[in-house]
Amino acid sequence: MSQTGLRGVAAGQTAICTCGAGGHALHYRGYSIESLAENAVFEEVAWLLTRGELPTAAELEGYRKKLRGLRGLPRALRETLERIPADAHPMDVIRTGVSALGCIEPEGDFSRQTDAGDRIMAALPGVIGYWSQFSESGARPETETEDESLAGHMLRMATGEAPTAERLRAMDVSLILYAEHEFNASTFVGRVVAATLSDFHSAIVAAIGALRGPLHGGANEAAMALIERFADAESARKGVLEMLQRKEKIMGFGHAVYTVRDPRSDIIKEQARILSAGHPRAELLEISQAVEDVMRAEKKLFPNLDFYSASSYHFMGVATSLFTPIFAVSRMSGWAAHIFEQRGNNKLIRPGAEYIGPEEREFTPLDSR
Amino acid sequence: MSQTGLRGVAAGQTAICTCGAGGHALHYRGYSIESLAENAVFEEVAWLLTRGELPTAAELEGYRKKLRGLRGLPRALRETLERIPADAHPMDVIRTGVSALGCIEPEGDFSRQTDAGDRIMAALPGVIGYWSQFSESGARPETETEDESLAGHMLRMATGEAPTAERLRAMDVSLILYAEHEFNASTFVGRVVAATLSDFHSAIVAAIGALRGPLHGGANEAAMALIERFADAESARKGVLEMLQRKEKIMGFGHAVYTVRDPRSDIIKEQARILSAGHPRAELLEISQAVEDVMRAEKKLFPNLDFYSASSYHFMGVATSLFTPIFAVSRMSGWAAHIFEQRGNNKLIRPGAEYIGPEEREFTPLDSR
Repeated sequence: MSQTGLRGVAAGQTAICTCGAGGHALHYRGYSIESLAENAVFEEVAWLLTRGELPTAAELEGYRKKLRGLRGLPRALRETLERIPADAHPMDVIRTGVSALGCIEPEGDFSRQTDAGDRIMAALPGVIGYWSQFSESGARPETETEDESLAGHMLRMATGEAPTAERLRAMDVSLILYAEHEFNASTFVGRVVAATLSDFHSAIVAAIGALRGPLHGGANEAAMALIERFADAESARKGVLEMLQRKEKIMGFGHAVYTVRDPRSDIIKEQARILSAGHPRAELLEISQAVEDVMRAEKKLFPNLDFYSASSYHFMGVATSLFTPIFAVSRMSGWAAHIFEQRGNNKLIRPGAEYIGPEEREFTPLDSR
Repeated sequence: MSQTGLRGVAAGQTAICTCGAGGHALHYRGYSIESLAENAVFEEVAWLLTRGELPTAAELEGYRKKLRGLRGLPRALRETLERIPADAHPMDVIRTGVSALGCIEPEGDFSRQTDAGDRIMAALPGVIGYWSQFSESGARPETETEDESLAGHMLRMATGEAPTAERLRAMDVSLILYAEHEFNASTFVGRVVAATLSDFHSAIVAAIGALRGPLHGGANEAAMALIERFADAESARKGVLEMLQRKEKIMGFGHAVYTVRDPRSDIIKEQARILSAGHPRAELLEISQAVEDVMRAEKKLFPNLDFYSASSYHFMGVATSLFTPIFAVSRMSGWAAHIFEQRGNNKLIRPGAEYIGPEEREFTPLDSR
């Protein structure tokens, strides 16, 4: 046996999501990603994931109000964020921020898990904004903003500006698309931690650490670094062909669970198209299209969600280093749903291993080595 | 399929450890746990795990010296620890401390992974001691102690006292016994995080979060809570029988990977026996023996490592809330070895899931719900 990464092995049961059916489908609790991205706001989707059904109008209003009320950061957390170096990795910052929040406001017993999940999701944009603005300029921004939606709050915290209607809609769509993806590595990590009956914050902190990896959440930042290298579509075409000749990896294409196409890509690409109008770096869209064309022609690979998320976030005014932290804010909803589900029918997750090391051997005393 | 917890499924290859062979064997890189606990010091075992072979005398001396030089905590970390509430869970504290250390002293690229692992293991006793003494009395203890061994440093940080020779040996043995255990939940979590190519600190922070769970590292604290309830052996016998009648769970007995006996139990029990001599609560050993006798007679269950670790740590003067953090210091060596191994032959770990949720359904507009 070689390293198989448990590919295709069912590690448990879930009622939250299916991805990859027919090579291209994604459903959250039975609803297609296309229908959710077209008709819902992010809080509807987060409610659907964490509570199991779409909210009524009253539930949605109450949920948004609750989340708005959970944006303040306790002083000990702010003072902790102020002690993180300005050149820290933003994912290390939110990992530390959530861990500190778990010390300051522990979950206590599992009956409070829903509140713990709502609190972390609502507070995270403030953690990101407070640290990034403080570390950049020493500013101590107010995190209790008036923005009605989490998308608006996220944009204001990430950019320091009031969001336009177009950016707001694009951020909302992006949060919906990134919210949930079955037993991906970070979600699986969260479930394994939860299965030891550890606390909610430990599971989320672990998931953030997994999402940080370039093979997982870091791909949208790598896609941005790629398209930024090119001045126009023609040089992108040429540059990517050269990269392929040198067998360099192009991030943002293909997907382990989709064989036909990533259903989220067309949706975010449309948002990128809308946002590009009048943007000073609108050519990033043509550059992205050129990269897509080359990858289709040369490698028969389709863009995944990460690829056009890069230009979308850039057009929204978001710094590249905050792409993965925003992914984490969105995926909080999916992580929370999976932790609740794991706890609801728990069994310790403890696989075995194939041993390939030395046979039994005699201990050699130190002075004989 | 029900929840199987991946029991018996090989999730990868390892050359580090086998546990459970014959129902009772444990080997680190081919050496039996009995031979290591009898002949080695903890640093020899940590070197064996993380470097693959037992150290020469010069390597061991250099390694201990290196670890001694890595005990200081940066000011930003100390100031972060001072902001954690006094009633926080100590595992939340070390999770936050390691996460903050990852912001202050990031691994950078993987060529520095060995240094990152040594640093965390050497600094952790200081994190535990600094926070527990500061939160208790406002003291700011010096963490750069002169103790030659990690065991001695650990004891001084946990108790505030210079260790006796007997406590030193018992702590060393305990650290050896807790160092490594194949694909247990926390180690597996560390490997899944590492497999996304995330950083070393993210993997350790995740592992700490898993170890925190009562089904994993928390069992030695639960065992202490149990034996402390009884005044003497006779009331322990009676009390445990009553608990069994009420079908209450007795922590510290049986083990998923050992069917005959836990090979570490007799070793730590002998240390508990040595330490009990002259201790004002020496009867805790007889109480433990009484619980063991009842569990063997009534449930045919043997004590696992956690059970006699409880009285051993208590006799060493360690507060119960620090048992699991000390487990984490020891297991740092095993976690590091597994992260290195995962990175050396990496594949993303991404299992599948069995879907048990709703079939595809139409989106209902908000005003029709």
